[in-house]
Amino acid sequence: MLESLKEAVLEANLALPKYGLVTFTWGNVSGIDRPSGLVVIKPSGVPYEKLKRDDMVVVDLGGNIVEGKLRPSSDTPTHLVLYQAFETIGGIVHTHSPWATSWAQAGRAIPALGTTHADYFYGSIPCTRDMSEQEIKGAYELETGNVIVETFRDYDPTMVPGVLVKNHAPFNWGKDPHDAVHNAVVLEEVAKIALNTQQLNPNSTSMDQILLDRHFLRKHGKNAYYGQTSNNNNSV
Amino acid sequence: MLESLKEAVLEANLALPKYGLVTFTWGNVSGIDRPSGLVVIKPSGVPYEKLKRDDMVVVDLGGNIVEGKLRPSSDTPTHLVLYQAFETIGGIVHTHSPWATSWAQAGRAIPALGTTHADYFYGSIPCTRDMSEQEIKGAYELETGNVIVETFRDYDPTMVPGVLVKNHAPFNWGKDPHDAVHNAVVLEEVAKIALNTQQLNPNSTSMDQILLDRHFLRKHGKNAYYGQTSNNNNSV
Amino acid sequence: MLESLKEAVLEANLALPKYGLVTFTWGNVSGIDRPSGLVVIKPSGVPYEKLKRDDMVVVDLGGNIVEGKLRPSSDTPTHLVLYQAFETIGGIVHTHSPWATSWAQAGRAIPALGTTHADYFYGSIPCTRDMSEQEIKGAYELETGNVIVETFRDYDPTMVPGVLVKNHAPFNWGKDPHDAVHNAVVLEEVAKIALNTQQLNPNSTSMDQILLDRHFLRKHGKNAYYGQTSNNNNSV
Amino acid sequence: MLESLKEAVLEANLALPKYGLVTFTWGNVSGIDRPSGLVVIKPSGVPYEKLKRDDMVVVDLGGNIVEGKLRPSSDTPTHLVLYQAFETIGGIVHTHSPWATSWAQAGRAIPALGTTHADYFYGSIPCTRDMSEQEIKGAYELETGNVIVETFRDYDPTMVPGVLVKNHAPFNWGKDPHDAVHNAVVLEEVAKIALNTQQLNPNSTSMDQILLDRHFLRKHGKNAYYGQTSNNNNSV
Repeated sequence: MLESLKEAVLEANLALPKYGLVTFTWGNVSGIDRPSGLVVIKPSGVPYEKLKRDDMVVVDLGGNIVEGKLRPSSDTPTHLVLYQAFETIGGIVHTHSPWATSWAQAGRAIPALGTTHADYFYGSIPCTRDMSEQEIKGAYELETGNVIVETFRDYDPTMVPGVLVKNHAPFNWGKDPHDAVHNAVVLEEVAKIALNTQQLNPNSTSMDQILLDRHFLRKHGKNAYYGQTSNNNNSV
Repeated sequence: MLESLKEAVLEANLALPKYGLVTFTWGNVSGIDRPSGLVVIKPSGVPYEKLKRDDMVVVDLGGNIVEGKLRPSSDTPTHLVLYQAFETIGGIVHTHSPWATSWAQAGRAIPALGTTHADYFYGSIPCTRDMSEQEIKGAYELETGNVIVETFRDYDPTMVPGVLVKNHAPFNWGKDPHDAVHNAVVLEEVAKIALNTQQLNPNSTSMDQILLDRHFLRKHGKNAYYGQTSNNNNSV
Repeated sequence: MLESLKEAVLEANLALPKYGLVTFTWGNVSGIDRPSGLVVIKPSGVPYEKLKRDDMVVVDLGGNIVEGKLRPSSDTPTHLVLYQAFETIGGIVHTHSPWATSWAQAGRAIPALGTTHADYFYGSIPCTRDMSEQEIKGAYELETGNVIVETFRDYDPTMVPGVLVKNHAPFNWGKDPHDAVHNAVVLEEVAKIALNTQQLNPNSTSMDQILLDRHFLRKHGKNAYYGQTSNNNNSV
Repeated sequence: MLESLKEAVLEANLALPKYGLVTFTWGNVSGIDRPSGLVVIKPSGVPYEKLKRDDMVVVDLGGNIVEGKLRPSSDTPTHLVLYQAFETIGGIVHTHSPWATSWAQAGRAIPALGTTHADYFYGSIPCTRDMSEQEIKGAYELETGNVIVETFRDYDPTMVPGVLVKNHAPFNWGKDPHDAVHNAVVLEEVAKIALNTQQLNPNSTSMDQILLDRHFLRKHGKNAYYGQTSNNNNSV
């Protein structure tokens, strides 16, 4: 079942080491089949170089394993909360990519400092609040999803396709697993450039809103004019 | 038409990922045929690994497509303004290379701190001013070219073959597309070393003018004595 | 003798350049056969690309060469002290990996700033004290082992599988040579992210203890639930 | 003539891009045949990938070309001054390797902060003084050599096999061309770790002299005990 989604999720997972986003098994990608509500996700702790299509695990939105011989990623409950809350997304990726993780550990949102950021993220990339003792000791991975959703009360997840989980690491999403990984690569590059910008100018603040609008809307929405088709959405 | 220029522009574009200057499609190179006034440029949003010679787009200096099935780079109007204003240049490159982009986001010119810089850039590499609301909302890419030209009122573009566009990223140029990419590689290296110099010595200021003269003129102009031919100009 | 341990030690040594942890010969891995008390270690100053299984040196815990034509690593006495004091470990690695070495040179413990750290190290990664003139001029490598053991008076080496030797570099250990190298890779990544976190937020302090508990115990001990088997221990 | 030295100089030059020390043609290695007083050096501005043994240029200590169809490196006069002043050295390398160049641009000596440094450099790696207008406008490359020699009035070049030329970049040397490149690789690694140490602890000062002695003398001089032979000298 869901063979083409499994293939897409496998390929998106294999893209993580290719783009230098992961050390060992520190990352996972999932994809959702919206009509059936089934999610395909990487199994927990399996090295990328050994990963095969049939290792992918199929779960429903309640977290029940529908198909697969292996345990799903321990972060599965986080993915499921996000799929339920963000109805327009089709793929999710979690890594500990080092530059983005530095911002998450510092507990700082990444301000929009330039057009590289503005081409993909329509404003700051937020950092979640501290989790409570109850949340951490309880259904921790599910609560991680809840705190992300809470952070996006005032954000459109389609306009800002990523978040920093405080003292942890980033999550990204997109219209499909490939697009989610694309956004994770962008986040890491943006995080690196932003950190170095701060070294050069500690008082750097967000860029001009008009320039931010111009760049984001050049690539997104009905008046987009970047690439070979109108109305593209981050496609490469 | 312009087959050898198309080949040169293709090769220069393919050099961008090879030198680590671009992520995804974040860069473009063009070249001009001065006798005809025709410009060859990368199509918009096409991945480098799929780029072929016949994908290159030919436009005139007014921006009209003369040949090619694909849309030209969305930055084409910037290139055209520069070719019109800087009559001695034959190639232009735009990337979001991370170290140079950090300086652009910080809104700081890169001071000439050492001979690596002085071998290629005769003084600071300037950063453009903030663009106005009118410029951003209007013909934005054309105005980006105009603000660069304005920045070079007091600079000779042959002596300083590159610029940082504020809150955006660098543009470089050269006598041909290959030379423009060469200068982009140098800019990125110079930006990295300059940032780390500032970390070690926040009070670093520009190097001695006499040493700057010596190094620049060792490689450029009629008394150059670097390389195997006199009067070379950055050739490798 | 000990052919499979020699093979494991060889492979673990060859993993050091593969993971970018060493320049030239700046690193060594050993493994112990607990039943016989014999230790297999890399020979001193032999380049990794020339290293063969039969170059491995076998020594007893007193430092006597039991088998091998080459001199053992000059750091052998440090390894032997650690094997004697830390009875649960089966492999040790020493490198000058640059990010961890930066913390060692700065004389600072690496605080637990995020879950990447907490997944492997149950609290700060300590830095040893200054060694005395007598220790340095005496049996220096043996005393290096002693100062590490002294540092772990209040630490469980299984819970914090690594240390920074002040003005020197890191040592890591694990249940076997492969696991020790695994921990060395993690330490280097953690050291890099922690340094960049400090750049973004110089006041960063250790993460919440409850979050630290949650992450460490998710991967370690009898209630671990990461990976495909219960009770795993950092295995990839 | 000098075929084996030409081969050694060629190989040492080709090692520069292999170790990531150079961009384009920004580096050169030479070697001297002490009995004849003849120096073999890289030709100026020739890309490494096109370099062949017979491109190497042979010059005498007065700078006269004895053999070779190409111009020697523009830095040849610097090399010749060093060979005349430092009688124990057999190879010299000059690069613009980025971390070492950052210290040179900052005008700061690299303090001995740890054993990685102490294994190769017996104390700080000095930075030369500003050159005078007369020196820069005169025989600049020869004067660069003179200012290095002046800096080593109080240093033994065998004990500190490298220098930072202010606002320029490093020079290294060794017993032969291969050893000089080895020291250049070490300098770059030491410069990187030292810069990051300063980020973590801006008050870092030189390490304990006794520890410095112990490490340098472990690898150098008649009581060395690192590697497979006594009395080694940085051999890998």
